[in-house]
Amino acid sequence: MNEFELIARLIESLPTNESVVTGAGDDCAVLDLGVPDKLILFKTDAVVEGVHFTRETPPEKIGRKALARALSDIAAMAGTPTAALVTIALPKNFDAVFVTKIYAGLNALAEKYSVAVVGGETTTNPERILISIALLGTVARGKQILRGGAKVGDAIFVTGELGGSRAEKHLEFEPRLAEARWLAEHFSIHALMDLSDGLAGDLPHILRASQVGAHLLKSAVPISRAAKLRAKENSSTKPAFAAALTDGEDFELLFTLASKNAVKLLDAWKKKFSGLKLSCIGKIVAGEGIVVRDKIGSHKLNAHGYVHFA
Amino acid sequence: MNEFELIARLIESLPTNESVVTGAGDDCAVLDLGVPDKLILFKTDAVVEGVHFTRETPPEKIGRKALARALSDIAAMAGTPTAALVTIALPKNFDAVFVTKIYAGLNALAEKYSVAVVGGETTTNPERILISIALLGTVARGKQILRGGAKVGDAIFVTGELGGSRAEKHLEFEPRLAEARWLAEHFSIHALMDLSDGLAGDLPHILRASQVGAHLLKSAVPISRAAKLRAKENSSTKPAFAAALTDGEDFELLFTLASKNAVKLLDAWKKKFSGLKLSCIGKIVAGEGIVVRDKIGSHKLNAHGYVHFA
Repeated sequence: MNEFELIARLIESLPTNESVVTGAGDDCAVLDLGVPDKLILFKTDAVVEGVHFTRETPPEKIGRKALARALSDIAAMAGTPTAALVTIALPKNFDAVFVTKIYAGLNALAEKYSVAVVGGETTTNPERILISIALLGTVARGKQILRGGAKVGDAIFVTGELGGSRAEKHLEFEPRLAEARWLAEHFSIHALMDLSDGLAGDLPHILRASQVGAHLLKSAVPISRAAKLRAKENSSTKPAFAAALTDGEDFELLFTLASKNAVKLLDAWKKKFSGLKLSCIGKIVAGEGIVVRDKIGSHKLNAHGYVHFA
Repeated sequence: MNEFELIARLIESLPTNESVVTGAGDDCAVLDLGVPDKLILFKTDAVVEGVHFTRETPPEKIGRKALARALSDIAAMAGTPTAALVTIALPKNFDAVFVTKIYAGLNALAEKYSVAVVGGETTTNPERILISIALLGTVARGKQILRGGAKVGDAIFVTGELGGSRAEKHLEFEPRLAEARWLAEHFSIHALMDLSDGLAGDLPHILRASQVGAHLLKSAVPISRAAKLRAKENSSTKPAFAAALTDGEDFELLFTLASKNAVKLLDAWKKKFSGLKLSCIGKIVAGEGIVVRDKIGSHKLNAHGYVHFA
């Protein structure tokens, strides 16, 4: 059983109560705690030494990344972050200066987004540093955007460029909070999530939750310079397009809206966010799964980014 | 620098915002998110294999303990828990049955206290299992009880019996949620916390936050049967009284209220919670630190439970 199969089994029978609007399985949990005009967003996200960063990563960037990942999940609900708790598990011989710098990086990003850091804890993890962030946010009541709303005929959009994040971006990405709120305010967005596991791994979450399929146009998928460069420099690595689909840690927004609004969105976006690319990469279709179209024809795509002739 | 010194340094300069009622340093953070009659409680707590449980601990009890510890912190604010997120870090070769049983134990306790489990995540920690619980709760606006309200002349109370928790209780304790809410509803409780690090380690939190000292009466401190038994069976271990002060993981309530209400409280408690001992163990005095009185005289107590002649 892999991690995803385990999660699928675990979330089948979780306890619930009347506060739950959306439980496990979306970017954040959504709770109704009685705020008249708002719902509460609740999320945790962890980074682990050797998995998400190394001992050589500058400590400020470790702390920044830990919080930024959770902020990206609040963005994925079109919400606003409010307060965070920081759990940091440390080897016994921890370097206090290193830990202080982790917090400095985290605190700087928190201040940028007006997030209060209201505590947390330190505990022991003898072999490696682990940081778990618990984050609370809010969203205007009824304005949260889930993964399950994609409709046949929708256009599929992605912000920024994909792939190659491990070179640098995974430590420096900006959570798309302002962009997501603007989208929710000005357009009827049907489905929204943030890209953490790569387009090939994450788009299926929207498709399954919405019970639809997708056609992607290969030439429309925005590939990062870092992914292109790596593919060029090392012919034994995966091609740049595969990197864009599967590298992960892009932390860009993936969303759908009715095709008829696509041009209007692209025009308005250019005026509002001129520094950030927005790409229409395909459309939602009836059925299931992802088909990629290129010059040669159509190919089925699986979660690992391998393509087979359809 | 030890863990406590590190925490003290880290919480000096945390980002804040207008939602924060009480930030780092109490049992839970307290937030005002705009619920008309309630404040939000926010807490994380982690358990680590080899520290808080072992590979031999029944997995259901590991999950139960992970959640119970966080519930105890909600109790320590006289609050009601609402929803939890579960972060579980696992070695790559995890046993899915074991993990499923961890969740079963956690879910059963969640259901008992009407707590929704609304998601979380699994991540990788190669050498050992680590579980972090993020918990949301509520408390009637203005009814939260902090650590800093103890007043000179207050009587100091503790529920249950202390020490020897590692024999069994640390896996099976009941968070004192109902008891804490009843106390807050019927009495003017000045300061309240839960005992996780032992009376000698935790009472100083109330004393420092309240800028007061304490006199304890040795004969009044309730010592658990497990602590007495261990001291009797093994004369090289610490005496039962020292165990009661320093073993930790008691998860009982420690609180103060005006002495004039002490007898009334004891009478009402006996009627309401006949199965749970409530002990008046001393009083709040001017000054700082803890003095323990026994037949021989008065002794100063430090956080490690060592006593010296005062």
